[in-house]
Amino acid sequence: MPKPEILDPQGQAVAGALARLGVTVAGVRQGKHFELDVDDEIDDETLQRIAGNLLANPVIEDWTVRRIGNEP
Amino acid sequence: MPKPEILDPQGQAVAGALARLGVTVAGVRQGKHFELDVDDEIDDETLQRIAGNLLANPVIEDWTVRRIGNEP
Repeated sequence: MPKPEILDPQGQAVAGALARLGVTVAGVRQGKHFELDVDDEIDDETLQRIAGNLLANPVIEDWTVRRIGNEP
Repeated sequence: MPKPEILDPQGQAVAGALARLGVTVAGVRQGKHFELDVDDEIDDETLQRIAGNLLANPVIEDWTVRRIGNEP
């Protein structure tokens, strides 16, 4: 997700399109979403490192890691 | 998120980069993430309609809507 102080033209385009469709939103931000299929052995620290060093650009993006189970 | 049967070259590139860094993952899928700042009055049905008609391409993408509160 782009940091709050970073311009987000894609999000602004979505907000404009919504307004033309009659839905008023206070704001839209567009970011990326990655789903990694990993072994349980990979610890949270490794996942944080992957997210911060490889997937996100920490200069302009905020990021969060969420570990979800493998639902049956 | 691209549907399982849809090729995801960006996800594959990330998986390859991770492998070169010594982290083995079973798979990576890359999708989009939107955060909408909306009034509480907007109901879930409207949000589902926004997501399915405007934000996602339902031919090639799966999507979910998650409503989160405005944490203080």
